Amino acid sequence: MAEFKTVRGMRDFLPKEAKTLRYIEGKAREVAELYGYGEIVTPVVESHELLAAKAGEEVKSRMFVFKDLGGRDVALRPEFTASVARLVATTMRNQPRPFRLFSVGSIYRYDEPQRGRYREFWQSNYELMGSNRPEADAEITMLTNSLMSSSGLKDYMFKVGHVGVLRGIFSQENLDEKVQDAIMQLMDKKQYDDALRMVEDNRASGKCMKILKELLRLKGQEVFDVVAKMQKLVEGYDEAVKATKNLCEILKLVSESGTKINMVVDAGFARGLEYYTGMIFEAYVPDLDIALGGGGRYDRLIELFGGEPTPAVGVAHGLDRIMLAMQEQKTLLEPAKEKSVVVISASESLRGETLRIAVLLRDAGIPAEVEVMGRRMAKALEDADRRKVDFAVIVGERELKEGAVVLRELEEREQSTIRIEKLIDTIKD
Amino acid sequence: MAEFKTVRGMRDFLPKEAKTLRYIEGKAREVAELYGYGEIVTPVVESHELLAAKAGEEVKSRMFVFKDLGGRDVALRPEFTASVARLVATTMRNQPRPFRLFSVGSIYRYDEPQRGRYREFWQSNYELMGSNRPEADAEITMLTNSLMSSSGLKDYMFKVGHVGVLRGIFSQENLDEKVQDAIMQLMDKKQYDDALRMVEDNRASGKCMKILKELLRLKGQEVFDVVAKMQKLVEGYDEAVKATKNLCEILKLVSESGTKINMVVDAGFARGLEYYTGMIFEAYVPDLDIALGGGGRYDRLIELFGGEPTPAVGVAHGLDRIMLAMQEQKTLLEPAKEKSVVVISASESLRGETLRIAVLLRDAGIPAEVEVMGRRMAKALEDADRRKVDFAVIVGERELKEGAVVLRELEEREQSTIRIEKLIDTIKD
Repeated sequence: MAEFKTVRGMRDFLPKEAKTLRYIEGKAREVAELYGYGEIVTPVVESHELLAAKAGEEVKSRMFVFKDLGGRDVALRPEFTASVARLVATTMRNQPRPFRLFSVGSIYRYDEPQRGRYREFWQSNYELMGSNRPEADAEITMLTNSLMSSSGLKDYMFKVGHVGVLRGIFSQENLDEKVQDAIMQLMDKKQYDDALRMVEDNRASGKCMKILKELLRLKGQEVFDVVAKMQKLVEGYDEAVKATKNLCEILKLVSESGTKINMVVDAGFARGLEYYTGMIFEAYVPDLDIALGGGGRYDRLIELFGGEPTPAVGVAHGLDRIMLAMQEQKTLLEPAKEKSVVVISASESLRGETLRIAVLLRDAGIPAEVEVMGRRMAKALEDADRRKVDFAVIVGERELKEGAVVLRELEEREQSTIRIEKLIDTIKD
Repeated sequence: MAEFKTVRGMRDFLPKEAKTLRYIEGKAREVAELYGYGEIVTPVVESHELLAAKAGEEVKSRMFVFKDLGGRDVALRPEFTASVARLVATTMRNQPRPFRLFSVGSIYRYDEPQRGRYREFWQSNYELMGSNRPEADAEITMLTNSLMSSSGLKDYMFKVGHVGVLRGIFSQENLDEKVQDAIMQLMDKKQYDDALRMVEDNRASGKCMKILKELLRLKGQEVFDVVAKMQKLVEGYDEAVKATKNLCEILKLVSESGTKINMVVDAGFARGLEYYTGMIFEAYVPDLDIALGGGGRYDRLIELFGGEPTPAVGVAHGLDRIMLAMQEQKTLLEPAKEKSVVVISASESLRGETLRIAVLLRDAGIPAEVEVMGRRMAKALEDADRRKVDFAVIVGERELKEGAVVLRELEEREQSTIRIEKLIDTIKD
């Protein structure tokens, strides 16, 4: 028989990895609660029409698309934002603004598998919809920092930009929106020469070309300094100037909040998705060349889904990637609160009593496995020892008659007879 | 523009529902930890071949099957067990037995949507593999009870049976295994007359027919009494007698463990899936006619996936259905540990300070929203009040100069000026 395998690009998380994934998911949920984001759970399978509505050509070409048994064109979600926008434009339409919505789960894109990149991957997603103010952009940035820092990640950086700067210039130069999209996509792929050529081919002014070339070189960690230079550089392009002021205001709010983030402002920074309209950012670890999360402002999104005009800012974090970074950095998870115990009966007739004692322990919050293999005592203890269980509780006839069991500390290889009513306190100590 | 909707049979969980779903998921994970089950996370998309290997015709015909962009035949998982079996037969093959494995997530079946039945639904799944002993069966039953009871469900019942009883009779009557499968499926659908006719048509003895008719009537809550009657009834069918003894032993262990379950033993109980070989059970709420969870023993499963013969017992719980039962029973979730706060700046220039105070609160574990709509104070307070936020912290120039803010208890409509360093303790009190 051929061996069964995961489908190419899909992965299993074994217990140790699953624990890390769920740990990060728990941190993401904690951050959502602390920032007042309500969790929503939307389906993995959505209509193809919905998922295609805002996706760029590239994402569209990499979706898992199929027909369900009823002949409907459906697809596996390649991100959360379309589903959230659907809800905000329909079911939640009449609820008070702002919307603060959190989602977490698996996402599907048919990319070429590589390190840290799977076809099924995990994201936490936060959307703050209804506010066009810089404190909203600051909040999304800050909560991303909260997630990275509470996961225990070190040495992560933020790259920040503002699509309004380039778009402002392009618009004033009368570049068609489709052309602008194409240029932004080239920039996202760091194909700057091609991007510049396209600008030139679309009859941009010489002044514009000069400014663009300087902008693309402009980046640095002295963020207010870089933003001031950007502003000076784009003088005369009113929308671009406004964008730099907006970026400055957002960064000022983040700084005043006391949030310390290692940050690079990059004037030539673009993000692939076409719908960004304002500040954009990514979090990354310099040692790994993948982004751990990214987002920004997209004020025209909800309209695209048939809802009322609703300014919005959002971010998605790659939980698999945060996990990879944690593994690289050897980040330790918080240790388990309780010791683990295996409960073993010394004879067949005591199996019911053994289960009863396991129940007792679990009711007190202590994880308790029962020996179910019918192995001899020495063998069962050896196995528990190898798996680094903390204690063995041995249920024997003689002890049980006196209301006691044997408690064995596996690492120390010490054991003593102990009354059942004292068992829980002894293990917890 | 046509309104976007969820795909037929799929559903959204809005914040209140999502909280309940995640609450039950958390309880399921807690139970897994307490019983020593390691969590694994397997893909939603698996090869069609894998998912079809053990599924009965009925499940197979209701799978979401499609080709991925690489032309692979894949499907969305209709249950967890195939994925777990794949892992146990391959990656985890050489790990020490028993395997205690827990999974939780979404599952896909193209059923006709109805109350409590969606095409995407949520399950928690526990597999105990490697033990053929009754304490393993007892454990799976007990942990199902632990989940139901810790979720706060009332009045739930267990229905218990043993496929070995009927199978033992059929085998001794020389009924072909395929015929047996078909009969069991009819029984699962409660088409007892058709089932009996099929037995008769396959030349079963008169004695057999007589016993079957009595067995199908045999059920009750006096479980040991019912099992004793079953045993007496099937006398002469050795494998069937063995099965009743096995069932008796399992029930005895559960009872000796001190676990109190309202239980019905039903001699004619069958479960749809063909691979069960021993004890089977379902948990249900009498008021709702859907099972909340079910499982049993399937000792030949791992072989089917190319692994070594591995006795196994497992259970899956429908989280959506538990949720539905909780809603019907008006089960209250545990209240949030911390009060919620909205932080509002009294003037534009204090927005950074406002963010800083929100950070302070969150660092202390207190959920803090920031007013990001730029609304006037009265409006912002009114909104917070309507959403039943506990406190508003108002950041004003005058108070801030003295290191203080205004703390307003929204329900009581009382407010006082309070020093920032005392803010956290005051809110937590």
